[in-house]
Amino acid sequence: EYLSSQSSPEASTKEPNRSKSYDPKKPHITETPLTRRNWYKHVNWLNVVLIVGIPIIGLISAIWTPLRWQTAIFAVAYYFATGLGITAGYHRLWAHTSYSASTPLKIFWAAVGGGAVEGSIRWWARDHRAHHRYTDTEKDPYSVRKGLLYSHFGWMLMKQNPKRIGRTDISDLNDDWVVVWQHKNYLKVVLFMGLIFPSLVCGLAWGDWLGGFIYGGILRIFFVQQATFCVNSLAHWLGDQPFDDRNSPRDHVITALVTLGEGYHNFHHEFPSDYRNAIEWHQYDPTKWSIWLAKQVGLASDLKQFRSNEIEKGRLQQMQKKLDQKRGKLDWGVPLEQLPVMEWDDYVDQTSNGRALVAVAGVVHDVTDFVADHPGGKAMIRSGIGKDATAMFNGGVYNHSNAAHNLLSTMRVGVIRGGMEVEIWKRAHNENKDTMIVKD
Amino acid sequence: EYLSSQSSPEASTKEPNRSKSYDPKKPHITETPLTRRNWYKHVNWLNVVLIVGIPIIGLISAIWTPLRWQTAIFAVAYYFATGLGITAGYHRLWAHTSYSASTPLKIFWAAVGGGAVEGSIRWWARDHRAHHRYTDTEKDPYSVRKGLLYSHFGWMLMKQNPKRIGRTDISDLNDDWVVVWQHKNYLKVVLFMGLIFPSLVCGLAWGDWLGGFIYGGILRIFFVQQATFCVNSLAHWLGDQPFDDRNSPRDHVITALVTLGEGYHNFHHEFPSDYRNAIEWHQYDPTKWSIWLAKQVGLASDLKQFRSNEIEKGRLQQMQKKLDQKRGKLDWGVPLEQLPVMEWDDYVDQTSNGRALVAVAGVVHDVTDFVADHPGGKAMIRSGIGKDATAMFNGGVYNHSNAAHNLLSTMRVGVIRGGMEVEIWKRAHNENKDTMIVKD
Ligand code: HEM
Ligand code: HEM
Ligand SMILES: [Fe+2]
Ligand SMILES: [Fe+2]
Ligand SMILES: [Fe+2]
Ligand SMILES: [Fe+2]
Repeated sequence: EYLSSQSSPEASTKEPNRSKSYDPKKPHITETPLTRRNWYKHVNWLNVVLIVGIPIIGLISAIWTPLRWQTAIFAVAYYFATGLGITAGYHRLWAHTSYSASTPLKIFWAAVGGGAVEGSIRWWARDHRAHHRYTDTEKDPYSVRKGLLYSHFGWMLMKQNPKRIGRTDISDLNDDWVVVWQHKNYLKVVLFMGLIFPSLVCGLAWGDWLGGFIYGGILRIFFVQQATFCVNSLAHWLGDQPFDDRNSPRDHVITALVTLGEGYHNFHHEFPSDYRNAIEWHQYDPTKWSIWLAKQVGLASDLKQFRSNEIEKGRLQQMQKKLDQKRGKLDWGVPLEQLPVMEWDDYVDQTSNGRALVAVAGVVHDVTDFVADHPGGKAMIRSGIGKDATAMFNGGVYNHSNAAHNLLSTMRVGVIRGGMEVEIWKRAHNENKDTMIVKD
Repeated sequence: EYLSSQSSPEASTKEPNRSKSYDPKKPHITETPLTRRNWYKHVNWLNVVLIVGIPIIGLISAIWTPLRWQTAIFAVAYYFATGLGITAGYHRLWAHTSYSASTPLKIFWAAVGGGAVEGSIRWWARDHRAHHRYTDTEKDPYSVRKGLLYSHFGWMLMKQNPKRIGRTDISDLNDDWVVVWQHKNYLKVVLFMGLIFPSLVCGLAWGDWLGGFIYGGILRIFFVQQATFCVNSLAHWLGDQPFDDRNSPRDHVITALVTLGEGYHNFHHEFPSDYRNAIEWHQYDPTKWSIWLAKQVGLASDLKQFRSNEIEKGRLQQMQKKLDQKRGKLDWGVPLEQLPVMEWDDYVDQTSNGRALVAVAGVVHDVTDFVADHPGGKAMIRSGIGKDATAMFNGGVYNHSNAAHNLLSTMRVGVIRGGMEVEIWKRAHNENKDTMIVKD
């Protein structure tokens, strides 16, 4: 094949396989059908414990753990911090390089992002790049085409075939020591930032060690996870598609509210390296606001933004597409080239035999059923029957609206050979009659 | 002129002049300039008294007239009845014949419409037809082009030149005995329905003769007048133009609320013989509702309605128009026919001299400033430099979004003679090299 002879940047990035125990020679479990006897082998039990099991234990423990107001405030604040670690750090900084961050900011995002317990930056960003590059296809790690729940967390609860996920270039991430360090020490980062740090804060500051662990740790992790998972599920399922409806991403304010501003996802898939997701000032995008703030204090720079010219072009084309679809569903009258050709005298003859025909701009219209409904009255429209009503219709008597022109075209029954007036003028001249005087 | 030789239905309708004292030989007062000495001659004093004077007297009298709740309820109810007399009777029935009414309903509309004190049906409908036929022109009796206040009531407070107002066919009104009778007995109708009837009701029923006169009569007249005048002012000034922006009529919910549903005026001017003004169920149009109710009880029939196909065509064309205006304001890149033509070898040469050029679909693009911003990474876009990147760009490596295609076109710098690939394939064949293998 032609393409295969081209060198691709992917070939040069030596991408380690996801799991070290994975042996490409043996068939992967996902390649064997799910049966009653092997189903438990398909389940990713570690993730089930992390995403479902621990939160349930947390919820039950919460019954016996009083919630102190200081702990509640901290848990909510830490929810936002760890959520932004995912949205402003993992997503917009590393997966999409939509801005540059100074080292302190990178370390901060890597730390709080780790506290959200959604995998290392390196793993997350690689999957996410595959998601953008292969959106909605078999190579999309969390394709919504496989179901809303699958895209939400089903893809993590069931084992995945690493060969299936599209490959992407992550050489820039491999060059970033913060990313590499976090990947290598991921388990320590998760334990410390996810559970120990919140317990420490609440314990040392107001003596609520257990509350810090349950509310600031376990339950906060659960909420951050569920919220950010919505970017893969809800954002591909609920809302409008103002920029492109080729794929599943959608814009919706509810998704934005849940996901710290990642809800303008149709925009995001079209303009992935824009540091914004919401482009209007009144839309909710705290991730954008925090990146902007980081820039003001000198921690971030080079915030990428697509020109509004490019954004408006996309919006316009999508509107045009919808308009064209709608146009196709409406009745615009018989196309001119499909109409029979009539002689002028034929036309006049037929009207004297009682048919209510009106000729406008070379086209004959049957207005029989419309005479009684004519908004300008019966007498007016009757005065055009059997005549060349072009001028009357177009301002000579009344300058008809666009709506009237549309309606007229649905009444087409024929075209007149030679464009009418010309012929009758000629006739008048030939027969040397002066019934009609044409100036200039 | 050609048109003048045609017979027009207008020529056959012998339209009496508006004022009997009007002598076409003497110059009309409006033909003399307004000066400090003759200004009072320009004022229509009768209308000033009717529209401004009496309401002021009413307001002052109200200070000493206690408002009883029964009278208040009656005044509001009578406000709606007389308002509907104008909107459902004068306007939609007689001016636009948008439905047929039985004689009892006609008499009712003629009575309550008279109680609104806005002139006879015959006079009102004639002016209104001129307003539709000559909208926004000199012949429009209440053209908004002359100012918002002029269109509201200025046209009544100042004397008008009857020759100025466009002429219209009102033969159908002259054939309607209810219209003719009301016109002949207009003063009696106004006095009875406007003032005597409300006083009688409140006097006989709960002894409030004066309250009935002041609140149910004078002040109610004032509010009905101001509300319905808004159709000529506000409805030509405030709101959107979803169907046509050639003229001034506009749609706005505020106007609709004030005018018993006549606020969807852009629609109304496009589809004047539609018995509806609001076409959506959730829009406020009590005039439409009352016509519909009248039909249910057998008092009205033949409710005219434009096909939704015609309405949607208008809306679509207006949207198309706005889209086209917007399209013209955006940058779509240099048109292909204005680009210089390059040879394939030229293109390759220039890229080896350091210019970042990428050829896609026969067009050369300068991506120098974009390499660092490329959402798919620097390595990816660099791999297209100096090559035919058509296939890579269109799915071979990544199927770029519509937005990427738009962006690409803004980077155009040349077209390649002969459409490139074909040429290089040929070259490979000619030189008998097998560096590239082309299947089927
Ligand atoms: C031949 C097919 C005709 C169609 C389909 C048609 C349609 C319409 C429509 C839809 C209107 C409503 C206002 C508007 O949309 O602009 C209208 C109004 C009018 N038409 Fe026609 N018309 C026809 C022929 C004529 C002719 C031959 C005359 C005159 C010789 C005429 C005179 C008028 C006048 C004076 C009005 C103004 C009524 C008003 O807005 O109050 N029409 N017509
Ligand atoms: C020549 C000018 C190019 C322009 C203007 C351009 C533009 C873009 C844009 C706007 C995106 C964002 C996603 C989208 O809108 O679809 C994108 C993504 C991408 N581009 Fe390009 N591109 C160019 C060339 C290339 C070439 C030559 C390659 C590969 C050989 C390439 C590979 C990619 C990949 C893999 C992505 C996916 C990144 C992701 O969504 O995560 N691009 N490009
Ligand atoms: Fe997505
Ligand atoms: Fe993304
Ligand atoms: Fe109007
Ligand atoms: Fe009207």
